[in-house]
Amino acid sequence: MKIGKTTTVASAICGSDDETIVVRGADLCRDLIGKLSFTDYFWLLVTGERPSAMASRVLDATLVAIAEHGLVPSVQASRMTLAAAPDAIQGAVAAGILGCGSVILGSSETAGRLFLRIDALAREKSLALEGAATEVVREMRALKQAIPGYGHPLHKARDPRVARLFAVAAEAGTPGQFIAIAEAVEKVLPGITGRDLRLNVSAAIPAVMLDVGFPAEALKGVPILARTAGLIGHLTEELSAPIGFALSYQASREQRYTGALPPGVTLKTTKE
Amino acid sequence: MKIGKTTTVASAICGSDDETIVVRGADLCRDLIGKLSFTDYFWLLVTGERPSAMASRVLDATLVAIAEHGLVPSVQASRMTLAAAPDAIQGAVAAGILGCGSVILGSSETAGRLFLRIDALAREKSLALEGAATEVVREMRALKQAIPGYGHPLHKARDPRVARLFAVAAEAGTPGQFIAIAEAVEKVLPGITGRDLRLNVSAAIPAVMLDVGFPAEALKGVPILARTAGLIGHLTEELSAPIGFALSYQASREQRYTGALPPGVTLKTTKE
Amino acid sequence: MKIGKTTTVASAICGSDDETIVVRGADLCRDLIGKLSFTDYFWLLVTGERPSAMASRVLDATLVAIAEHGLVPSVQASRMTLAAAPDAIQGAVAAGILGCGSVILGSSETAGRLFLRIDALAREKSLALEGAATEVVREMRALKQAIPGYGHPLHKARDPRVARLFAVAAEAGTPGQFIAIAEAVEKVLPGITGRDLRLNVSAAIPAVMLDVGFPAEALKGVPILARTAGLIGHLTEELSAPIGFALSYQASREQRYTGALPPGVTLKTTKE
Amino acid sequence: MKIGKTTTVASAICGSDDETIVVRGADLCRDLIGKLSFTDYFWLLVTGERPSAMASRVLDATLVAIAEHGLVPSVQASRMTLAAAPDAIQGAVAAGILGCGSVILGSSETAGRLFLRIDALAREKSLALEGAATEVVREMRALKQAIPGYGHPLHKARDPRVARLFAVAAEAGTPGQFIAIAEAVEKVLPGITGRDLRLNVSAAIPAVMLDVGFPAEALKGVPILARTAGLIGHLTEELSAPIGFALSYQASREQRYTGALPPGVTLKTTKE
Repeated sequence: MKIGKTTTVASAICGSDDETIVVRGADLCRDLIGKLSFTDYFWLLVTGERPSAMASRVLDATLVAIAEHGLVPSVQASRMTLAAAPDAIQGAVAAGILGCGSVILGSSETAGRLFLRIDALAREKSLALEGAATEVVREMRALKQAIPGYGHPLHKARDPRVARLFAVAAEAGTPGQFIAIAEAVEKVLPGITGRDLRLNVSAAIPAVMLDVGFPAEALKGVPILARTAGLIGHLTEELSAPIGFALSYQASREQRYTGALPPGVTLKTTKE
Repeated sequence: MKIGKTTTVASAICGSDDETIVVRGADLCRDLIGKLSFTDYFWLLVTGERPSAMASRVLDATLVAIAEHGLVPSVQASRMTLAAAPDAIQGAVAAGILGCGSVILGSSETAGRLFLRIDALAREKSLALEGAATEVVREMRALKQAIPGYGHPLHKARDPRVARLFAVAAEAGTPGQFIAIAEAVEKVLPGITGRDLRLNVSAAIPAVMLDVGFPAEALKGVPILARTAGLIGHLTEELSAPIGFALSYQASREQRYTGALPPGVTLKTTKE
Repeated sequence: MKIGKTTTVASAICGSDDETIVVRGADLCRDLIGKLSFTDYFWLLVTGERPSAMASRVLDATLVAIAEHGLVPSVQASRMTLAAAPDAIQGAVAAGILGCGSVILGSSETAGRLFLRIDALAREKSLALEGAATEVVREMRALKQAIPGYGHPLHKARDPRVARLFAVAAEAGTPGQFIAIAEAVEKVLPGITGRDLRLNVSAAIPAVMLDVGFPAEALKGVPILARTAGLIGHLTEELSAPIGFALSYQASREQRYTGALPPGVTLKTTKE
Repeated sequence: MKIGKTTTVASAICGSDDETIVVRGADLCRDLIGKLSFTDYFWLLVTGERPSAMASRVLDATLVAIAEHGLVPSVQASRMTLAAAPDAIQGAVAAGILGCGSVILGSSETAGRLFLRIDALAREKSLALEGAATEVVREMRALKQAIPGYGHPLHKARDPRVARLFAVAAEAGTPGQFIAIAEAVEKVLPGITGRDLRLNVSAAIPAVMLDVGFPAEALKGVPILARTAGLIGHLTEELSAPIGFALSYQASREQRYTGALPPGVTLKTTKE
């Protein structure tokens, strides 16, 4: 069954025969293995070009910044899944990645789109960044859209990773336009929303990555790759020091059943 | 409901409060972001220690070697999934990772266990590696177990990535014990199985990684992390140059229905 | 770390102690097992109430209508995943379900929301259904939104499942309001879009299900549950008559690498 | 790239053209929709044949028995995933299904294989069931293999679903051979293991399903399909009464970081 218009299969990423594997215009064995870092290879795979030293440094810092933050929901889901299905570590990684959605981590991408809109508006109308930010944020509020990338459940002051990422970007010599946009949004938000929401790491990621030319449509891939590394760390620990079922036990220890009880049936209150 | 013995939740990977995030004994913002590569951070997350320069070089080379090999089944599954569910890139990545199983990629781990068994046997009985390899492979054959990591559908001679990975390992100065074991298995296989199966990349990975001290139980994580980078490259391409449905169209273009037809029903043979 | 406002865990679905399991107000062992069909139980789990005979009949027909349609993309992804990871059938089912997205199958839910909007508008403004449909469809077109549930790559005339589902609904005695809305949209579409797009099964599902009172927010669950049954059928066949790798082979048999070749490298054209 | 021997694509499950969809030898629209239950259709999809009334009754009872058991780990993982990624309900279902592994739910299949081995041995050597069970269980213990399907963390006496499933099977008139085998194992276990482990639902499922002729290789599909229904119930509740993040909060509320602290860094003990 034909779905869509294209029926021919082509890709610019990789070609191979029995002796040679070509990736993004380079001979994998001759030109790439042992000659560039995994971080630079990720950039090459996604963009088709090698990163500048500046881009490479910022991408490394970003991947390190968001790979790990303890027993967050996706890590818990992943460790519970491994506890229940220990033979399929790939399934546990997949379960963890499925939690990189619009609310958590995935907001990197939506925050990136917000910054691009502000950048385009500022250029188009020759506005200062705060002016453009105000206009776009007001419009989003009018449409009752959430402002992605601001506020954090734990880090009420600015998430400490934000300052560090911005410092690395400055050291690396990035133009800083999207950092300025991200900070412009932070500045105008209290006046518009009445809430002092600070830049969180999901806004810092697109700010620094767009500044080094990473494509907006691949932004969500950055936290996904980073978190995969974190998940593998947790799953390796789970194999030797399991807490998957303990997490589940604690999670539901004080649960209440709020539905009806059938006639003649009671449930003991102690539930272990 | 309590499953298993542990009900308390502890982890040695990450602790945090509202100002500080500690990962593996280091302050994430002060000591890690911008100060080590993503590759070295992956090693730290998994093992709790920083890699040697040798280990770092070999891990980078290994991740680069296996991140991408064109439209393999897991990439096809991932691109089809994105075509059907374009809003959830994390779902498409997860679908691709789910194909890192025992037959494909996952054999890194089982090959690693095979090499460790040969290593232990050689030490225990003071055997030469070929002698130990012969004993273990014969035993596996007797139990009708497959020998993981040998033979490749495309690369009938040795997969070109194998020689390159071994060369990088030699340049980096690894001890080479597990490379020697992997080659001992390759040498004895034809005599035992009657088939000239060459080392493939799934045997080269554990050979070089065990030589730099990577934990055996985390071996499967290496191809999973690497492939995640490759998948993100493909999914970014899919967004701008979609082939997900074309792959599906081609895959089933010549399909045959081999079941029965109900009385009075015929199907047109052209199926587009 | 606290995310969101609620920190207490409660659910109205199931409570249990060591002797009794209560589900949705009934004793699972005494009142449910062996006393109602899986279809009726699904309704009870989702809604908290038992279905009427009419609702039960329509839900059964709908689940049967969409469980299986051959080697569609999600089935291909699932069979390829099992071929690569045969030990984890749950992973292959998951890979297939991940393809129930906004483009395929998931449009049941978005079509349902469209019908509810038309229904609300017709009541609010006392419009005939075609008038309300015209207004809503025009508005969606102005916002460049796709109209979900109309058109099919294979079934250019109306998908045969549509007529059958509508007939079953009529036999079961459903009110037919949402079928009338779905047909009103089909009627006004050519005039607005210039294309003769017929109702497909993804529009028929919400039409018949909303008519029997199934909650709109659970509509996507109907194709997901149905497809799970289809996937298990395919994966059982895959275990004895594998085509997972053949699908992948066919899919990429005529692939072209459209990237650059590095200096001095050529690739053989025959790629097997 | 060719993997494996088969390169042609054939399936006996479904064929179609633009007017007709044939499934397992029947016309989907004419013969199936509205004419058989979803439960019977699942049997037809998996086996290629329609179930007897006895088989249909037992399959319905089994699916109802295991669809729902409250906030078990896979449900928690699924609800956390929806909380983080609310736009992709298919991702949350997939995360839940990934927890149907060898430890939880998946033991239906391994228990089924155990019963088939005992059945075969009893026939081959003309042994009584308890004798055959003793021999097989002793052999498994010698190989340090777990006995799947016995013992339950909550239901220390026999899981109440077991008696009910066996009663339904008896009412339906099943031969009862595999129930007898399951009970023979339960009887001999204390003498061999020293532990009074009772039949749990994962042993009851293959016992009743093998008795009605369900194929052993599809056994794991039964809990997967059933749980999908339960997951959709929970995810529908999650949309209106979210507890995904509350589960995560409770799970890690008392977590301890057991790794080292870097020089000069302390963490506040209160972690909210």
